[in-house]
Amino acid sequence: MKIKGFSASAVQAGIRYADRLDLGLIYSEVPAVTAGAFTSSKVKAAPVTLDIERLQQGKAQAILVNSGNANACTGEQGLEIARKTGAMAARQLAIEENLVQVASTGVIGETMDAAPFTRAMPELVKRLSPEGFSDLSQAIMTTDTVAKMSTATVSIAGTEVNLLGVAKGSGMIMPDMATMLCFVVTDAQIAFPALKEAITSGVNETFNRITVDGDTSTNDTVLVMANGAAGNDWIDEENPGTKTAFSAALHDVFKDLALQIVADGEGATKVVTIRVVGARKKEGAMNAARTIANSALVKTAFFGEDANWGRIIAALGRSDCQFDPEKVSIAFNDVVMVKNGLGQGAEVESSASEVLKLDEFTVTVDLHDGMETAEVFTCDLSYDYVKINADYRS
Amino acid sequence: MKIKGFSASAVQAGIRYADRLDLGLIYSEVPAVTAGAFTSSKVKAAPVTLDIERLQQGKAQAILVNSGNANACTGEQGLEIARKTGAMAARQLAIEENLVQVASTGVIGETMDAAPFTRAMPELVKRLSPEGFSDLSQAIMTTDTVAKMSTATVSIAGTEVNLLGVAKGSGMIMPDMATMLCFVVTDAQIAFPALKEAITSGVNETFNRITVDGDTSTNDTVLVMANGAAGNDWIDEENPGTKTAFSAALHDVFKDLALQIVADGEGATKVVTIRVVGARKKEGAMNAARTIANSALVKTAFFGEDANWGRIIAALGRSDCQFDPEKVSIAFNDVVMVKNGLGQGAEVESSASEVLKLDEFTVTVDLHDGMETAEVFTCDLSYDYVKINADYRS
Repeated sequence: MKIKGFSASAVQAGIRYADRLDLGLIYSEVPAVTAGAFTSSKVKAAPVTLDIERLQQGKAQAILVNSGNANACTGEQGLEIARKTGAMAARQLAIEENLVQVASTGVIGETMDAAPFTRAMPELVKRLSPEGFSDLSQAIMTTDTVAKMSTATVSIAGTEVNLLGVAKGSGMIMPDMATMLCFVVTDAQIAFPALKEAITSGVNETFNRITVDGDTSTNDTVLVMANGAAGNDWIDEENPGTKTAFSAALHDVFKDLALQIVADGEGATKVVTIRVVGARKKEGAMNAARTIANSALVKTAFFGEDANWGRIIAALGRSDCQFDPEKVSIAFNDVVMVKNGLGQGAEVESSASEVLKLDEFTVTVDLHDGMETAEVFTCDLSYDYVKINADYRS
Repeated sequence: MKIKGFSASAVQAGIRYADRLDLGLIYSEVPAVTAGAFTSSKVKAAPVTLDIERLQQGKAQAILVNSGNANACTGEQGLEIARKTGAMAARQLAIEENLVQVASTGVIGETMDAAPFTRAMPELVKRLSPEGFSDLSQAIMTTDTVAKMSTATVSIAGTEVNLLGVAKGSGMIMPDMATMLCFVVTDAQIAFPALKEAITSGVNETFNRITVDGDTSTNDTVLVMANGAAGNDWIDEENPGTKTAFSAALHDVFKDLALQIVADGEGATKVVTIRVVGARKKEGAMNAARTIANSALVKTAFFGEDANWGRIIAALGRSDCQFDPEKVSIAFNDVVMVKNGLGQGAEVESSASEVLKLDEFTVTVDLHDGMETAEVFTCDLSYDYVKINADYRS
């Protein structure tokens, strides 16, 4: 899919490794309404700090992104490099400097060298093409094993609006090698507050619900650029119907990319949805789902294809969620292994073991204590996770 | 070391596996002042529930402990089995039923069969001996690779008082196979409130500071029995000096056992102390230390012997601790790799890499923001952790 007015490109700049795409650019022919969502970490990378500052104007015209170096924990010098590389792109594109967003992913704490950017910039801009998003999606990969792209089309008051998103994982974070990055471009005509709201609610329901290892990056970044080229009726406060339609389409793109990230989580062999239902409070349900989804014991049991509900109930027990252990039921897909806190025997366990052999399944924990629910998407913890993270950088 | 008036024993009862010690007994000739500390999980195993109830009387005369089955998530039936097996021991020992404490470790959610207890009880009591604690320390092992014992002697107003403790890991918890259990016997003459206080503060500074995988068991139990056989001056509120001396000795035994548990953590190859200093608030320091100590990325870097401070600062960034990233320093033993939030270069990194090759080292994170400190003991995350936890039960 192409999006009217947007182009992208990528080159081998040699930022950390030779012979791989590691520098990418997204360009909008006109300044686009742009909003984002960023890491909640108290340690924010230089590009995140710069982007947040620049997005106060609610628009951008380009995104410059590199892998190989996160430009995090690099102090004032890091901010200067972020500004400087952004300025190079602006000059080459002949646009305003503060309309460039920058993003980085890679090793934390190493000074980023501007020279590869200087060398690569002319070629990077020269290669811009409406078909360039596939190259760009490869340039932002770190330990990802597959590039991640998603598209959607939605009708806004009769006008077709298109969205195209790219993302990388390969975990909620791997602080010195990966980062969750996601860029979406759309030809929607949308007001900044409406876009901001759609991003916030979408991220909350998708990217904020995935976990590979429970860590949070210094560089997590989601950016959405809307250039209005579709010429649709304005999506804004005064047209709640258009807002709902656009938000749903953006949500679909986010969720598709989020699940691609989990499926490609470091060492992952399975994608597991943890659903907690029947909770008294929403926060309790979320905390319970997250605690189960992040438990090393639960995740190794998934890898071992062991329908080990004892580990699930133990994780639940140490979560901040209030519940009565004697009311809990636990199901693997539709196989209910636990009722009223008690296991349902060997025959049921053998059916559950079949579910565990699948590449994707859902664990539903019903607390029978209220109406609130929460869903978190996780993967298993395998030998390869340890291998990837123990060997990296060595 | 023997402790006057205490004996212990263990037998092969065949609770889950044949040909291994799996049932143990600790016996005091007289009812001993006894206090404990138990799991904070909302899901408490049957023996934990029973012990807490019985300890309201502040004394006990025996502890019956089995491995192979945790008797957790077993409902009313589980409580009955706990009472019934305790009663068997009481009958055989000719003591009051409610003076028996029970403890279990092993698989969660399976009904425990009383028959092996019935068959084994006469032999178990017959074998009681002052030298029996070594056998007992083996009977409570699950994935532990070594038995854990520690002793201490302290002078209380001129009288020698002895302590002997046994414990098992091999993680803060492995919900369906391991559990943190610790039993200490002492000939100290001590009042119940003083013993309770010494346990609470000791556990808080030792067992509550270790982590293998961040999970918390349904069965965690610490029990201390004091029979007064040493004939020392009473340790109580009126003799603060004796309280301090006894608490320090108990703390030493707890800490020794706690570090043995971390060193024998599932798959562990290293013991790492995470020290957070210079924090504004105590809770912040604890939260930061725990978040770093539980990070899968930090732990795999330790396994890979990679002085990867970026992962440490990223874990710090997502913790609940308030700090200024530009003030943080990080040291591996005495090698300061990070000052004012910035890495100190390749030469320092190479010295730090040497520290990472050690079996034990300390990571000190200085926030330069206040006077509070916290210390947590952790281990690395290796292939074997995944192997042990993915293969178990299969």
